[in-house]
Amino acid sequence: MHSIKQYQEFINEYQASQQVVREPKNLYEPISYILGLGGKKIRPTLTLMAAEIFGADYKNALPAALAVEVFHNFSLIHDDIMDAAPLRRGNETVHEKWDLNTGILSGDAMLILAYQYFEQYEPAVFRDLAKLFSKTAIQVCEGQQWDVDFENRDEVTIPEYLKMIEYKTAVLVAAAMKMGAIIAATSTENCELIYDFGLNLGLAFQLQDDYLDAFGDPATFGKQVGGDIIENKKTYLYLKAQEFSSPPQREELMHLFSIHPVDTNDKVASVKNVFEKTGAAEATQQAITDFTMKAFETLENMQISADKKAILRLFGEKLMSRNV
Amino acid sequence: MHSIKQYQEFINEYQASQQVVREPKNLYEPISYILGLGGKKIRPTLTLMAAEIFGADYKNALPAALAVEVFHNFSLIHDDIMDAAPLRRGNETVHEKWDLNTGILSGDAMLILAYQYFEQYEPAVFRDLAKLFSKTAIQVCEGQQWDVDFENRDEVTIPEYLKMIEYKTAVLVAAAMKMGAIIAATSTENCELIYDFGLNLGLAFQLQDDYLDAFGDPATFGKQVGGDIIENKKTYLYLKAQEFSSPPQREELMHLFSIHPVDTNDKVASVKNVFEKTGAAEATQQAITDFTMKAFETLENMQISADKKAILRLFGEKLMSRNV
Repeated sequence: MHSIKQYQEFINEYQASQQVVREPKNLYEPISYILGLGGKKIRPTLTLMAAEIFGADYKNALPAALAVEVFHNFSLIHDDIMDAAPLRRGNETVHEKWDLNTGILSGDAMLILAYQYFEQYEPAVFRDLAKLFSKTAIQVCEGQQWDVDFENRDEVTIPEYLKMIEYKTAVLVAAAMKMGAIIAATSTENCELIYDFGLNLGLAFQLQDDYLDAFGDPATFGKQVGGDIIENKKTYLYLKAQEFSSPPQREELMHLFSIHPVDTNDKVASVKNVFEKTGAAEATQQAITDFTMKAFETLENMQISADKKAILRLFGEKLMSRNV
Repeated sequence: MHSIKQYQEFINEYQASQQVVREPKNLYEPISYILGLGGKKIRPTLTLMAAEIFGADYKNALPAALAVEVFHNFSLIHDDIMDAAPLRRGNETVHEKWDLNTGILSGDAMLILAYQYFEQYEPAVFRDLAKLFSKTAIQVCEGQQWDVDFENRDEVTIPEYLKMIEYKTAVLVAAAMKMGAIIAATSTENCELIYDFGLNLGLAFQLQDDYLDAFGDPATFGKQVGGDIIENKKTYLYLKAQEFSSPPQREELMHLFSIHPVDTNDKVASVKNVFEKTGAAEATQQAITDFTMKAFETLENMQISADKKAILRLFGEKLMSRNV
């Protein structure tokens, strides 16, 4: 087994080796650009890790890992257009640096390029990977659509929200790990279990993202703390606060989530206060713990050594202990 | 063998049988909408025809045929956004009827759905089809990018233009036919020959589209006659006119292709006059004939009966004899 840092290096090296100068440059330069912006490479790392957990050489998993990373970046380009986001990883988004059409077309090309990475596997493995990939990619589109839909809806239930983040975020984490398992040709049961492990960890991860967006340390949190609150986003914190609030609290929350003040400090502070007073903050932390524990439970039935289980558990704990 | 009309019916029936009500409806309704706008279904028809030419039941080719049709419609949605087109097949385009985000996301989903149709084939066939599909899809993106690039360039050569229409249009026609051949499990040589047949026919078809856009019968031509001229598009006609023109003709052409008059009748008439006087109209018709003949030449080496060759030739002649 290797360390996360090593996996990241393997991915960067492999990515660099795959980069060829291709024409037309207006199509391929934006692709190199977004892939070059860095990022933590969590998803491809999980593919390599899962492959090694189930006994394969990580090298065999590199094409699939890169497919996952390229797909993830495709979705970032198109999501950034939909969100009219000016910045990604501290740099201009593709549609800002180039234009709308470039963002659409380069994104399309990346989705296709992702499929092409699977061609390096023999037919049966290729088919399993591409099937899982397509199913996952469609779910990510559906999750994104739910997210857009929810912005224009007054009422969103907790199960609806969880389904949305499952599709938009968690299924790709789950699929990334299952791809490693498929490449390692482990049992169907192990494949399903590592998928569930990834799915629950992905849910915990996204809920933690919601939590840290409000309560993260401004000194270390990568994004603007309170960003979701400023944009009136219906996150898990908000939905739980709605559920738990007394009538006056509810009224205050509704008011705060209807305004767009120039100076946002007071609004962010007031909303955070409601999140804490109603118990929504605590309930969110509890949900993060619950999904993390659910992920760890899947390890019990997994047919791998205790050492391997410990590695997966440590990785989960590390991911969940972040306060940034 | 069946008739083109029958193939179209098979495709429509199969498409209807595949339609399931899926959620979120804001993602899937636009997909049903564009697929329901009709169109001639030339590409999927070619897949079914090729399958039967090489001895397979057309039914086996239906999933691949629909994949081609869904992909084609994905590219229409995203191209219409890039061209800011209000109408498609006489109806509102997806981004007009819904919005930009819906157009992007529904298009993305269709690209993935297209891949999923191949899952109905056994692993080796699945892999061959998906590989051909990915290669083709990337070329279509590259062709679209060249098309966008050419709009902002003063000089475009004839070989560059031919490469652009080959990628943007012809490779999908070629791939549609080759997919039928792959499903029929015919020889590699036949697969390559039918691909070349489709490629050359696709090039002839696109050049005829250029020609008819200027010289088609307004009574029967589906689009606005002179549309390319009004938009100052650098088509084959224009590039040939540039090549063949005397200095004063060239100056007139450059002037005509720099203006956007409110009343376009005079401009269209003047440009058509230059196209004819310079010999560009004749050269375009010659190129259409040349590519059609090149397609028919590939039939000579194809290992199929003389009857089957006659069917492919007749189809080509029928496609090329259209004056609409």
